[in-house]
Amino acid sequence: MKKDYVRPLDLRAGRVDMNHGAGGRASAQLVEELFARAFDNEFLRQGNDGAVLPVPRELLDGGRLVMACDGHVVSPLFFPGGDLGALAVHGTVNDVAMLGARPLYLSASFILEEGFPLADLKRLVESMAAAARDAGVPVVTGDTKVVEQGKGDGVFIATTGVGVVPRGLEIGGALARPGDVLLLSGSIGDHGMAVLSQRESLEFETTITSDTAALHTLVAALLEAAPGGVRVLRDPTRGGLGTTLNEIARQSGVGIRIDEAAIPVKPQVEAACEFLGLDPLYIANEGKLVAIVDSAVAGRALAALRAHPLGTEAARIGEVVADPHRFVQMDTRFGGRRVVDWLSGEPLPRIC
Amino acid sequence: MKKDYVRPLDLRAGRVDMNHGAGGRASAQLVEELFARAFDNEFLRQGNDGAVLPVPRELLDGGRLVMACDGHVVSPLFFPGGDLGALAVHGTVNDVAMLGARPLYLSASFILEEGFPLADLKRLVESMAAAARDAGVPVVTGDTKVVEQGKGDGVFIATTGVGVVPRGLEIGGALARPGDVLLLSGSIGDHGMAVLSQRESLEFETTITSDTAALHTLVAALLEAAPGGVRVLRDPTRGGLGTTLNEIARQSGVGIRIDEAAIPVKPQVEAACEFLGLDPLYIANEGKLVAIVDSAVAGRALAALRAHPLGTEAARIGEVVADPHRFVQMDTRFGGRRVVDWLSGEPLPRIC
Repeated sequence: MKKDYVRPLDLRAGRVDMNHGAGGRASAQLVEELFARAFDNEFLRQGNDGAVLPVPRELLDGGRLVMACDGHVVSPLFFPGGDLGALAVHGTVNDVAMLGARPLYLSASFILEEGFPLADLKRLVESMAAAARDAGVPVVTGDTKVVEQGKGDGVFIATTGVGVVPRGLEIGGALARPGDVLLLSGSIGDHGMAVLSQRESLEFETTITSDTAALHTLVAALLEAAPGGVRVLRDPTRGGLGTTLNEIARQSGVGIRIDEAAIPVKPQVEAACEFLGLDPLYIANEGKLVAIVDSAVAGRALAALRAHPLGTEAARIGEVVADPHRFVQMDTRFGGRRVVDWLSGEPLPRIC
Repeated sequence: MKKDYVRPLDLRAGRVDMNHGAGGRASAQLVEELFARAFDNEFLRQGNDGAVLPVPRELLDGGRLVMACDGHVVSPLFFPGGDLGALAVHGTVNDVAMLGARPLYLSASFILEEGFPLADLKRLVESMAAAARDAGVPVVTGDTKVVEQGKGDGVFIATTGVGVVPRGLEIGGALARPGDVLLLSGSIGDHGMAVLSQRESLEFETTITSDTAALHTLVAALLEAAPGGVRVLRDPTRGGLGTTLNEIARQSGVGIRIDEAAIPVKPQVEAACEFLGLDPLYIANEGKLVAIVDSAVAGRALAALRAHPLGTEAARIGEVVADPHRFVQMDTRFGGRRVVDWLSGEPLPRIC
């Protein structure tokens, strides 16, 4: 056997160079010594430019495929509670789960900037691999490109998830009906404020930690507790809860009423938002979901969320109403009512 | 109904700004007025953060899923014969097809640089939509992020393709056996030299056009003509034919012999390579495939390739041999024999 590589990749002091993206020997070495090792699974080991995958049982039993994708460009790459690698798994697993589907497989496309430290890349890839393992959703195929210094920003990761939704289950943003109940799985604003706290020399007295997490087991628990009663699931990421509710109101052609006092916000997030003049309703979350459920199952559904480690602070936050204007309105803590509009400015760029 | 947007997107003189990636109103507008309109299909119209998809018949009949992804960072974005948008469809459709699979669905993740002209984005998206339509493989879900000026390079597009390989069909880089025959579907080096010709003020006397194309119908024709006889399919993209053959030799644990005189190279590509001191064996292709087939079906397989519009110049270029060193060797036009090594330098960055 010929010796393919004389020198191993210098994962301590080395840097990404253009050769790592050229498709030749250096590319192969990066894939073998870093990506394949971290993500190792039987599908990646096939060693082709794609993966051949077994068909999940639900598909043979009348289920349907689900496909979702997300590009991840968060800055900074590391933040309290997570990093780009973990986020790239969680974000896409959650998009698949929000359709009621069981996530099965991930693809990952890396766009690296020349000069990026290989040690940092290793940290991100290993965090991503750990997140994929924890979620039980393997990265089965991938791709790496390199762009010149100044033409990227360290690392971008685009992931696509494939899953399967069981026969008969219909969940989607257009299915909310007047009388339905809104549940929220926990406090809002944690992710956005955690990332923001790392930027622009902001320092808060207390550490705010990102909520980044894979929500598919929470969704599974909810669906089991309230079969047939879950109409809409959505994770309020970019744009925050306020924008997510407006999207649903528009898709379903309904109005939504929420109760400010019922929406959990951590004190340190609230304080930081107040200090910066931000509204937690528009701050991104990466480990929370909104569930719109039939009022008949709302109690059971809420109990199921609260019984899960990722939903201990779940709350009933409002209801769906008939409204041709499709307004989202909020009863404020001070006894008033105001319209919650879409996010229109850009308070927090590159949050995910 | 409330009027959601007062002003339509300025697709003539407007530019991408950070708001287009914030997940709020501007993001929704970009998706609706550009992406959803160009890619329009029943799955995108579901309007969720992912798509629910019907299960293809092959899967119910013992087939397996295939998943492949590719990030596309080609520079410049527009080149003779194609652009980033078309390439993002072809590259991933081809990765799926090289496993013998029928490509079904694409996801697309866009990473845009602040300040990029919306008119150019529209051109790319419409070209991508046309390529997807021509291939019969719809973009069913997508995502858009925006990074600050100087943190990206116009547009990057990562695509993932899902397909299905019929029951019993086994194709992969590890399946070449001594005695098998190598077929190449056409001339090499066209894509890389077409992109290069647009860079660094190079001007050649004749125009070289990229071969970018979706190869799945060519694969289908080949598989139909030589059932059971196709062992390996691969598209020699980055790294070129030379690197692709080395990958296969390593995966299969075999040697490969090729005949330089049999490898089609267009005269203008050959002249440009000679002028620049490049070897066409290492120049990227985006519309060519290598097929390694059982020698018993080689004649039929070659005829099937030649009968297809994308394979008119197909040629038998060599054979697989037993070789514990897994060398790729080439009989040169001058009667010698030399080793064809992996690409080790980086002659052509950002070719795809």
